[in-house]
Amino acid sequence: MRQGVKIVTIGGGSSYTPELVEGFIKRHKELPVKELWLVDIEEGREKLEIVGNLAKRMVKKANVDIKIYTTLNREEALRDADFVTTQLRVGQLDARIKDEKIPLSHGAMGQETNGAGGLFKALRTVPVILDIVEDIKRLCPNAWLINFTNPAGIVSEAVFRYSDFKNYIGLCNVPIGMKKEVAKVLEVDSDRIDMDFAGLNHMVYGLNVSLDGDDITKEAVEKFSQHNTSMKNIKDIAFNKEFVNSLGVIPCPYHRYYYKKEDMLQSELDSFKEGKIRGQVVKDLEKDLFEIYKDENLDIKPPQLEQRGGAYYSDAACNLINSLHNDKKDIQVVNTLNNGAISDFKDDEVVEVSCIITKQGPKPISMGYLPTSVNGLVRQIKSFELLAAKAAVEGNYDLAYLALCINPLTPSDDIAKTILDEMLEAHKKYLPKFNMA
Amino acid sequence: MRQGVKIVTIGGGSSYTPELVEGFIKRHKELPVKELWLVDIEEGREKLEIVGNLAKRMVKKANVDIKIYTTLNREEALRDADFVTTQLRVGQLDARIKDEKIPLSHGAMGQETNGAGGLFKALRTVPVILDIVEDIKRLCPNAWLINFTNPAGIVSEAVFRYSDFKNYIGLCNVPIGMKKEVAKVLEVDSDRIDMDFAGLNHMVYGLNVSLDGDDITKEAVEKFSQHNTSMKNIKDIAFNKEFVNSLGVIPCPYHRYYYKKEDMLQSELDSFKEGKIRGQVVKDLEKDLFEIYKDENLDIKPPQLEQRGGAYYSDAACNLINSLHNDKKDIQVVNTLNNGAISDFKDDEVVEVSCIITKQGPKPISMGYLPTSVNGLVRQIKSFELLAAKAAVEGNYDLAYLALCINPLTPSDDIAKTILDEMLEAHKKYLPKFNMA
Amino acid sequence: MRQGVKIVTIGGGSSYTPELVEGFIKRHKELPVKELWLVDIEEGREKLEIVGNLAKRMVKKANVDIKIYTTLNREEALRDADFVTTQLRVGQLDARIKDEKIPLSHGAMGQETNGAGGLFKALRTVPVILDIVEDIKRLCPNAWLINFTNPAGIVSEAVFRYSDFKNYIGLCNVPIGMKKEVAKVLEVDSDRIDMDFAGLNHMVYGLNVSLDGDDITKEAVEKFSQHNTSMKNIKDIAFNKEFVNSLGVIPCPYHRYYYKKEDMLQSELDSFKEGKIRGQVVKDLEKDLFEIYKDENLDIKPPQLEQRGGAYYSDAACNLINSLHNDKKDIQVVNTLNNGAISDFKDDEVVEVSCIITKQGPKPISMGYLPTSVNGLVRQIKSFELLAAKAAVEGNYDLAYLALCINPLTPSDDIAKTILDEMLEAHKKYLPKFNMA
Amino acid sequence: MRQGVKIVTIGGGSSYTPELVEGFIKRHKELPVKELWLVDIEEGREKLEIVGNLAKRMVKKANVDIKIYTTLNREEALRDADFVTTQLRVGQLDARIKDEKIPLSHGAMGQETNGAGGLFKALRTVPVILDIVEDIKRLCPNAWLINFTNPAGIVSEAVFRYSDFKNYIGLCNVPIGMKKEVAKVLEVDSDRIDMDFAGLNHMVYGLNVSLDGDDITKEAVEKFSQHNTSMKNIKDIAFNKEFVNSLGVIPCPYHRYYYKKEDMLQSELDSFKEGKIRGQVVKDLEKDLFEIYKDENLDIKPPQLEQRGGAYYSDAACNLINSLHNDKKDIQVVNTLNNGAISDFKDDEVVEVSCIITKQGPKPISMGYLPTSVNGLVRQIKSFELLAAKAAVEGNYDLAYLALCINPLTPSDDIAKTILDEMLEAHKKYLPKFNMA
Repeated sequence: MRQGVKIVTIGGGSSYTPELVEGFIKRHKELPVKELWLVDIEEGREKLEIVGNLAKRMVKKANVDIKIYTTLNREEALRDADFVTTQLRVGQLDARIKDEKIPLSHGAMGQETNGAGGLFKALRTVPVILDIVEDIKRLCPNAWLINFTNPAGIVSEAVFRYSDFKNYIGLCNVPIGMKKEVAKVLEVDSDRIDMDFAGLNHMVYGLNVSLDGDDITKEAVEKFSQHNTSMKNIKDIAFNKEFVNSLGVIPCPYHRYYYKKEDMLQSELDSFKEGKIRGQVVKDLEKDLFEIYKDENLDIKPPQLEQRGGAYYSDAACNLINSLHNDKKDIQVVNTLNNGAISDFKDDEVVEVSCIITKQGPKPISMGYLPTSVNGLVRQIKSFELLAAKAAVEGNYDLAYLALCINPLTPSDDIAKTILDEMLEAHKKYLPKFNMA
Repeated sequence: MRQGVKIVTIGGGSSYTPELVEGFIKRHKELPVKELWLVDIEEGREKLEIVGNLAKRMVKKANVDIKIYTTLNREEALRDADFVTTQLRVGQLDARIKDEKIPLSHGAMGQETNGAGGLFKALRTVPVILDIVEDIKRLCPNAWLINFTNPAGIVSEAVFRYSDFKNYIGLCNVPIGMKKEVAKVLEVDSDRIDMDFAGLNHMVYGLNVSLDGDDITKEAVEKFSQHNTSMKNIKDIAFNKEFVNSLGVIPCPYHRYYYKKEDMLQSELDSFKEGKIRGQVVKDLEKDLFEIYKDENLDIKPPQLEQRGGAYYSDAACNLINSLHNDKKDIQVVNTLNNGAISDFKDDEVVEVSCIITKQGPKPISMGYLPTSVNGLVRQIKSFELLAAKAAVEGNYDLAYLALCINPLTPSDDIAKTILDEMLEAHKKYLPKFNMA
Repeated sequence: MRQGVKIVTIGGGSSYTPELVEGFIKRHKELPVKELWLVDIEEGREKLEIVGNLAKRMVKKANVDIKIYTTLNREEALRDADFVTTQLRVGQLDARIKDEKIPLSHGAMGQETNGAGGLFKALRTVPVILDIVEDIKRLCPNAWLINFTNPAGIVSEAVFRYSDFKNYIGLCNVPIGMKKEVAKVLEVDSDRIDMDFAGLNHMVYGLNVSLDGDDITKEAVEKFSQHNTSMKNIKDIAFNKEFVNSLGVIPCPYHRYYYKKEDMLQSELDSFKEGKIRGQVVKDLEKDLFEIYKDENLDIKPPQLEQRGGAYYSDAACNLINSLHNDKKDIQVVNTLNNGAISDFKDDEVVEVSCIITKQGPKPISMGYLPTSVNGLVRQIKSFELLAAKAAVEGNYDLAYLALCINPLTPSDDIAKTILDEMLEAHKKYLPKFNMA
Repeated sequence: MRQGVKIVTIGGGSSYTPELVEGFIKRHKELPVKELWLVDIEEGREKLEIVGNLAKRMVKKANVDIKIYTTLNREEALRDADFVTTQLRVGQLDARIKDEKIPLSHGAMGQETNGAGGLFKALRTVPVILDIVEDIKRLCPNAWLINFTNPAGIVSEAVFRYSDFKNYIGLCNVPIGMKKEVAKVLEVDSDRIDMDFAGLNHMVYGLNVSLDGDDITKEAVEKFSQHNTSMKNIKDIAFNKEFVNSLGVIPCPYHRYYYKKEDMLQSELDSFKEGKIRGQVVKDLEKDLFEIYKDENLDIKPPQLEQRGGAYYSDAACNLINSLHNDKKDIQVVNTLNNGAISDFKDDEVVEVSCIITKQGPKPISMGYLPTSVNGLVRQIKSFELLAAKAAVEGNYDLAYLALCINPLTPSDDIAKTILDEMLEAHKKYLPKFNMA
């Protein structure tokens, strides 16, 4: 048996990486990471180097025995890995900018993980993740693949449905963020709060809130309804207070795209007209961040990273790896096969749900049926996810079109066609499966 | 045993009644209707008289032994009835006009059976139908109640869920219309066509089209995609041809409100601005129709009735009554308890589905799971229906608001609140349960 | 298009064949059978000839234009067939005798289609039927395969689960027999009776009995409880009257093996000790029958055939073929994929259930959940069927053993092992898949 | 808020009580029990006193601050309780002896919790537990009711189905015993073993065995198959080794009654003939135990108690109370509503399943579908449980008869009737609901 744990992070040149490094440093006693391999592609070489050097300074400063490797050779990195994390962005931020701009130019929502943007991010990303899965099966078949790459719901559905790899977990920072938000509105420490989470990625609801074990759902929803704020990545438009109270559960920040469809669209259209779409904002932010990362005196995670939108990613990822490694049997929220947990979904559909995390992987906690008020929307998004995953795997135009038409953010079948065709052309380089067809 | 069949039609003063009378006349040999009681309320007294007189002239002309009664006394009419049909409109066309105008005035879809309009039609109608059910249980407990009143999906859900009356069937002319349309685009006689129907009221899909028993689904969808037209009640905007082919099943005319959301909204907003909303058009049409009905020389169903939008209602209703009475075991499409027929729905949810019609009632044919491309939307509408039915029965503001917020035609939770409050005020007179609260 | 219908009967030398021939003669106007091919194997050559000659005399006497062919060449027969029926018996009656004797010699139920006997009949039969399916796919891919061969439940499960052939229907005469029995105890013509059937092959229940369309279930069950008799193949031990009334539905004759386990076992053990097991009785009966068939003056179905136990097979088979051919859309009871019809079963499990018979095949009628009192036993038998089908396809000893152990007629895991090993040896010749292992 | 925890044990005079007292003493730091009320009825007055005195000596010796109360006044005891445990035996051991003897005298299995004996134990017990539930709702509505009384499956089903009390948990020592047994055959400490448990009470299976988090299911089943032993209450007849390996999961000791039906029956019949049925053995054991308990020098749980059959009851009960009180979120196996955990059961059916234990109660872990080899039997037992629970609540003869007829241990409908009638007469005093009918 190897002495310590080997982690491979694909998309290691991401600006988020220092979060991860910090997480491993903090947990080093319990989770003895020996090697951290940061992998990227040619286009990310420079960023990889900057981030790698920062990581090296961070572990040195922390005086922990984690060896940092940077490489463009994925195969070399994967060999005998214990955990692989994926946080890649096919086509970089320029692709995201197109995902936002093209739909908005036709009056439809343009957003990174929802609607047409989410569909195209899936079409670009799914084949790459499935390739990585094949490499893992060959080079480190017992490793866990923990995927942060969005749209995590569709990616997870694709891996479980179109590969025979079982050691996959989809992960998102939204549930942790929701719990922190609830703790904040209740003005208590978030460790005293428990919530069940059930739904889909970026479409998850918080249920059964308890404080020190006692049920306070009604109070939590009430307080949340008065103060709800959003995430860095999402326009901060509050849900209607009475709506949240009628709903009776805690919606996630991304639910704004559905329950406040028109407000969100108008706001995005305004930003678009002002040339301030989120993709561009992030691109600028990232540029600044990497300037900061370059500073050879920097040897901790810089506070500016928190503006970036990935808060709690480190916690989510490192806690998950820790529990898998140490068979902790604690409760975490991940994307995995439903297996009966949420009665509204089939056993082989992917859900985002509270799970016991064991060395054997996540075991979902049974939630029964979701409230009537939310089960329709989640089923509709699941239909979209299923079609999108299949379209991505097959490079199937008709399915991609169908997925877009049934998405609730799509204004009409005709506009969908226009957007689809324009985006297929714009993202051509990253959609080889569609070009073959 | 009585010699013939006693039919009671509640809302008998409706302009549709001559359709029904014609249907009974045509089938008189097989379905020996002895008494037809047309029941209405004080507000409809004049129409009832006009329609009643026309009906009397029609049976006289046809020389069939059907006795026509008109009455404002529902109890008297119901006693020992064999079949009760309901085709009432709580608040008359003026209420419909409000259902359309108020949402449109806030930029949201205003339509008779969908969105905010459909919700309010349900809130007004459900308590009235449940009252009728109580009367039937007392006065003619073995009678079949056949309800045409919209929104038939919500009304049906309410009757099955909130009464213990089992002899209820919800009926709509949309499936017959779809079959006729398919026959038309295929240029064959509609008797040679069979289709399975599965979904919800005004949200039903045509599956497995066959011609003389041979499967021609692909061809039928292809032909339909090229020529699809709408119904009298719905703006005639064609579905995108490639969308229909990708869908692979025949959508119903009302699906335009979802798959062509923006186009339909724009079109309704235009009509609204021009003062030509459908409710007003129908009101004018009705006025003309009743002028025609008054003509003492008229003794058949006037051809102008076909402009009204209720084509095939007579066929739907009379065929259903005929099969129930004669235990025909033929296949018809009705709203009834799912009982496992469509695997996407629970056994106790109401669906619109092809059924065998026996003397014991409809027995649904098993459809298995709906295609992925359609099961999300139908589940979402079912959530809306369930909340709307409960809101109507309880007079529950929060549930009504929640129902509206989760409806896919609602632009946002804030606009929903504005519309809700304005409509509650506007329809106050017909919402006694809400006033009590 | 060919002028008439081509039927192929595999196992054509069976003593049942004259039933079938009579059925085709009676329906010739509606169902224009042009060719009837009787196929058998070398061991059945003599019987085939006898039956073939009788068939020829029958059609001649009836003066219908059906051409009878007899052949040992299955391929030749299958080419361009419209319907294929299978009524074969792998290992002939000698195998059945072993199926009965060996378990009985160890104090366990020995019966043709239940318990150890049913398991071994499945192990012998399933691979042969799957071979025939492969031939059909090659030689007449649009033909319908109608299988009477027992155990029809396991055979049907195997075909749907382990082949990709869809045009398969499993058929049994038990439901028709049950309906006739109910009509008899009610002293009415069986045409006036309707019943829903739901369950599994040889484990089907009659529900919702109606007379002229009116529900008389309670009365029918009450009358049935007083007079219930069995079938030719089953010992005639009446169900306890109060039990049947408590059950509230009509059990099938084979339910005796479960609800009267000990009585049936004792009775079989007695017969066994007296050397009068059913297999031997049937063998003797068959010998006599074939002597009768040889009579060159015989040109109708001889009345003695009715002692044989296959009453109504002709009706079941010919009515089914007729409805498939003529798209009759009438209701018949067959073994097909559940597709949601019985909520206790998964969509892809085979059930025996009332169906609409169309040219496209059977469409099950939704039954919802079975009564609590019966759903446990049917699930247990389904588990047995699933394991048995898999064991047969794979030639898997462990699965065969497991299937036997979980069968409710098996006395213990140890006795099961003894019986299994002895039967595997005894039937060796007909279990090539097990010998390979 | 009260300073410490108040526990009420109904049936406090049971010989098991010292187990419980020992458990509370051991955990006193973590679980500060302040009051332990032992409640019994007049017939148990003497035992209650003996046990109460022993309990007092035990807490004194252990020097913990637990106050022991004994009372025949249930109401007084329940007021403001935090936890109520029920370990009662309606009709005492004499009733159990009848439960065993009467069926055996007719050649059928006579056993405490299965078959006819289990049915009658349910008929006697369910109404008493439902009475206790009503008291709890009135006197300590926030208390948890933890029921050990057998048949725990039927009792649990009855409480959830026929009361509106939610704070109920059914508990059994079988799963802990199975885990210990597996640890024993693997020769490792049981703390290093994890297993999923899924099924029904006394019909539970052990799945997914892991050692230090690593999957060793195959090895565990293999080792278990070689050495499986039973419990004190069950004859020690080993499962067939190959059967267990084919099954692939760990059966529970009570599965012998089904998989070794004949061996168990023969063994019980032998004991019956020798006058050594288990009920009598236990009665003698208890007599001895109470003699020992009387010893005023005894101030610890006497080692002889372990012969009694209730091993691990203390662990099961005290661990559960501890986790509920301290919101521990650890995994324990209890009887609770399925809520989707085992896909073979409906959401509102009670299952025995691994759960996270929180202050809000148990949350089942999703198990998906059970293996085909076991799901039939569990469904059959669930049918029995559902009918038995309903029969007990309604005092319904027909349902009780039906329950008995469909139980797999019942030899035939006729014998069932004889046994039923004889047992109804024998237990008359404890079946007031049946006498009223």
